[in-house]
Amino acid sequence: MTIPVILDCDPGHDDVFGLWLAAGHPSLELLAVTTVGGNVPLEHTSRNARIALTVAGVADVPVAAGAAGPLARPLETAEWIHGENGLGGPELPEPAMDLDPRGALELMADTLLGADEPVAIVATGPITNVAMLLRDRPDLADRIREVVWMGGSTGRGNATPYAEFNALVDPEALAIVIESGVRFTMVGLNVTHTALVTAAVRERLAAVGTATAAFGDELLEFFCRTNADVFGMPDGPLHDPVAVAVLVDPHVVTRVHTRLDVELAGTETAGATSVDLDGMLRREPNAWVATALDVDRFWDLLDDAIGRLA
Amino acid sequence: MTIPVILDCDPGHDDVFGLWLAAGHPSLELLAVTTVGGNVPLEHTSRNARIALTVAGVADVPVAAGAAGPLARPLETAEWIHGENGLGGPELPEPAMDLDPRGALELMADTLLGADEPVAIVATGPITNVAMLLRDRPDLADRIREVVWMGGSTGRGNATPYAEFNALVDPEALAIVIESGVRFTMVGLNVTHTALVTAAVRERLAAVGTATAAFGDELLEFFCRTNADVFGMPDGPLHDPVAVAVLVDPHVVTRVHTRLDVELAGTETAGATSVDLDGMLRREPNAWVATALDVDRFWDLLDDAIGRLA
Amino acid sequence: MTIPVILDCDPGHDDVFGLWLAAGHPSLELLAVTTVGGNVPLEHTSRNARIALTVAGVADVPVAAGAAGPLARPLETAEWIHGENGLGGPELPEPAMDLDPRGALELMADTLLGADEPVAIVATGPITNVAMLLRDRPDLADRIREVVWMGGSTGRGNATPYAEFNALVDPEALAIVIESGVRFTMVGLNVTHTALVTAAVRERLAAVGTATAAFGDELLEFFCRTNADVFGMPDGPLHDPVAVAVLVDPHVVTRVHTRLDVELAGTETAGATSVDLDGMLRREPNAWVATALDVDRFWDLLDDAIGRLA
Amino acid sequence: MTIPVILDCDPGHDDVFGLWLAAGHPSLELLAVTTVGGNVPLEHTSRNARIALTVAGVADVPVAAGAAGPLARPLETAEWIHGENGLGGPELPEPAMDLDPRGALELMADTLLGADEPVAIVATGPITNVAMLLRDRPDLADRIREVVWMGGSTGRGNATPYAEFNALVDPEALAIVIESGVRFTMVGLNVTHTALVTAAVRERLAAVGTATAAFGDELLEFFCRTNADVFGMPDGPLHDPVAVAVLVDPHVVTRVHTRLDVELAGTETAGATSVDLDGMLRREPNAWVATALDVDRFWDLLDDAIGRLA
Repeated sequence: MTIPVILDCDPGHDDVFGLWLAAGHPSLELLAVTTVGGNVPLEHTSRNARIALTVAGVADVPVAAGAAGPLARPLETAEWIHGENGLGGPELPEPAMDLDPRGALELMADTLLGADEPVAIVATGPITNVAMLLRDRPDLADRIREVVWMGGSTGRGNATPYAEFNALVDPEALAIVIESGVRFTMVGLNVTHTALVTAAVRERLAAVGTATAAFGDELLEFFCRTNADVFGMPDGPLHDPVAVAVLVDPHVVTRVHTRLDVELAGTETAGATSVDLDGMLRREPNAWVATALDVDRFWDLLDDAIGRLA
Repeated sequence: MTIPVILDCDPGHDDVFGLWLAAGHPSLELLAVTTVGGNVPLEHTSRNARIALTVAGVADVPVAAGAAGPLARPLETAEWIHGENGLGGPELPEPAMDLDPRGALELMADTLLGADEPVAIVATGPITNVAMLLRDRPDLADRIREVVWMGGSTGRGNATPYAEFNALVDPEALAIVIESGVRFTMVGLNVTHTALVTAAVRERLAAVGTATAAFGDELLEFFCRTNADVFGMPDGPLHDPVAVAVLVDPHVVTRVHTRLDVELAGTETAGATSVDLDGMLRREPNAWVATALDVDRFWDLLDDAIGRLA
Repeated sequence: MTIPVILDCDPGHDDVFGLWLAAGHPSLELLAVTTVGGNVPLEHTSRNARIALTVAGVADVPVAAGAAGPLARPLETAEWIHGENGLGGPELPEPAMDLDPRGALELMADTLLGADEPVAIVATGPITNVAMLLRDRPDLADRIREVVWMGGSTGRGNATPYAEFNALVDPEALAIVIESGVRFTMVGLNVTHTALVTAAVRERLAAVGTATAAFGDELLEFFCRTNADVFGMPDGPLHDPVAVAVLVDPHVVTRVHTRLDVELAGTETAGATSVDLDGMLRREPNAWVATALDVDRFWDLLDDAIGRLA
Repeated sequence: MTIPVILDCDPGHDDVFGLWLAAGHPSLELLAVTTVGGNVPLEHTSRNARIALTVAGVADVPVAAGAAGPLARPLETAEWIHGENGLGGPELPEPAMDLDPRGALELMADTLLGADEPVAIVATGPITNVAMLLRDRPDLADRIREVVWMGGSTGRGNATPYAEFNALVDPEALAIVIESGVRFTMVGLNVTHTALVTAAVRERLAAVGTATAAFGDELLEFFCRTNADVFGMPDGPLHDPVAVAVLVDPHVVTRVHTRLDVELAGTETAGATSVDLDGMLRREPNAWVATALDVDRFWDLLDDAIGRLA
């Protein structure tokens, strides 16, 4: 039985792999893609999402543009990792499809209302669109199976000492989603930092042999180089597809039900995700937080999906 | 050549080992001990510091009581780790000496002014007393060789998800010390969590064979049990003596010169120590932060010192 | 020469008088009305705006619904002042027109692009819609003549000791508008608290003699009663039309160019508008702030406009 | 029957009049004076307090120096109002007495313990010393009759738009005093801004004819000039003696029992005193707040007291 899914993303190199995993894996049915300004501005992420589908030969999934920036803060982007257009590295084809004339919120709402069963939402960027949906259409909450998000951290961040990039960009949106009551899973840096693009990983992907895999390899070459330059990590972490993988196989991560709060007020720590793994705060658990990744299983899922695409 | 040192502490089990290391190791000259309310209230910490010296046969070091609580917040204590009197476990002797009639600030000032060379200060509790000294007597700053503090963390905390206990108790004091311009080294949980009291560590200590070592073993039995109960860590981390060890042997830790800020305003993260190890913030470095411990060397130093005491 | 204007509102009793002033006064040309959740939820404010126009015999102005709530906080409403439906008091007619199928942002954008000259925006509720427009369509900023907003205060608030209701509901939106660079005038409680609905004011309005005036009198009777109950003010202040009046006649208020900041982080003072009238902060002025009202002139303008309606 | 009182101050021109009112009025018995860094640094305030007593011929009241600065923030002073030495204007005599060898906290404690009845404390500067006393000696709380403080505001501030100087300098101390449970009265700018030093006020004072009055007139000349320069107020407000007057005659002000909170976290509003006069917050009252001053009665009290001094 397949799980129907909406993917909300800001491609970005690693988002592309999330898109491919969602489009290619037989256990998921990708109903819609929505985009948000994040790694690069919205015009780029909206184009890049369509390029990723075009490369993979996926033509029948609508893509709609959502929020250009966070709810209440100016947008900070990350061109130093992803390049000016957000997909530095390979030569990019023209996207084979136009943007859906509906905006992201309308596409999400129509998709939720049109499905036979509750739909999962995976978000791999700042979670602005999902927050707007839950804020403005609370009547649709019970049409959502669950929300899985790549972002945050149980430990250190990658944008400030304690804040991960997606969380820092729109912490107010994250607070809205956490408090919405919809089942929520955070897949943070503590887990995604183990999904490292090592030489062995790249060899495995190259061995898949498809055009999509070859395009992916060019993305990874660029992505690993900028990660090495910025963070001194030779094997860059491929964050986003891990959140999709959690939907494909719930056992690919270890998950704990715990208390998650996001810092909105701190002068040094805004955007930090405070995860009470040890129960020190004695508050009610309100989220699932991934704490470990079955790394080999993850790459197996990803390569399997990519092998089924063009 | 020995380094003259003032130890400011809130005993607490692990502070006792810090006191013994400072009193027993031949490379340090312990000039004064000052106490602060922290792990338990001031009356207990002031008594416990004297008990620790009494057990070790140290009679000639003055002990003065300082701040009963933090500069600007109510005191939170940690009896669940240290027991009601702060030294749960062994039967406690009467202290052999009275408190110095001077308060902590006056004893610190007299000690700094009376020494032939700048004096190091090691703080192993909330850093209130040192902050008051630097705030009220800036003229004495150049009499201080350096300040080494056990507290904070580069990652997760032990009192809230991102705050370590000593930092959470008095973050305003920490901010004052950081901004004072005096050379400052933070020895945080990221390092002290490797100083685990394993069975092997306890066997080594027992083998020292002195009365002090035997008393210490009783302390560790209690301390490991409460750590196991509260944090599920069977081998409790012996935080405080690591800060003293840094003074004994600068190479017992790896240290980086980096940016350290303490969160004062966050609703979820007050007391978090934001350490910019990757230089993401592009601010001027203002502190030394320990990032790794030579664990064997640490226990060697500690056992050596304890073996020289009563 | 008339000034083209968009009115963004959350009716609410006093918003209705703002609508009538904008629709009736010959020096303004009301191009569009947009609504926001505020005094009461969006479905009520969207209906009430159309009722206000229907009562006044205005049929050709499009009304579009905007944000149901603030950018990043839950909506707090004020039924205790305005009644459950937001227009407690008179029997309400059915609105004569439907909502515009375009949302508020699209109607605003089309209006700005379709006008021959820059268009003024007057906002008399939480300023969410204007913030979203400026955030998402910065290219339209130079199509906006100026923004005049009823909200904030240079002194005490009416929702918390230092926060006025509209500012408290969506302070993040206010920050976005202030920082947008568009000419901005704040008309706060310090001014609107002099626009008191005294017995003499009600007699003047009754003497206008139109159906609109009679409907207005019923609104005022209810509004004055709830203000008396809640704030102990027998003569309720008619806040919102003062902001419209500033556009009709720039000299109806005294205005200073000064520094305006809105508190986002305070635990006691979130939503407070910090207005540096005395230049204590030595920051660059960034807004115009009304400091006094020519009260008689204001009522003259309002009654004149109402007299020209149905 | 006289009320025993400790005066804690940071002279400062207006503090001097507070000292004279406390020392000269027959209904008060001034037991001790303590000083704090505030308007000018502690060495000046400690000297100026003694000068004020010397001028007035008061020789038997001990003066002790307290905190050099606030609990947890750097000290900001106000030389632009008070001059470099804090008492700009007259030629200053040498003080006739030394500082008490006890510090302020010890003098306060001894005074409280030595009195036959609970002693009132009036504070006319940053309330650091009183906070330290209540924080460190909670056992003395029931020896304190009440605390009356000049500071804060129910409306606008004089150091930032919403913060009064004494409150802004040490808001953490103010929070400690408010939460201590000791009866607390705030006499803020909303009241003291009506104690204006008009020409008539100066004539009345000159007519008192004593040496103290003549010295006071020179102080007022300087003080009114700097107030005019900085705030454009030709008749400067004589803040501090109003707090002392409240003790002399409880009816000289109108007082309400209400909720008082001080903002510690705001980026724009730190130090603002949030006074819930209208009961909007529905919290328990925790303080008395002065809301109006009987201005003539106030000057009568002050001139009466000055006339009884040298």
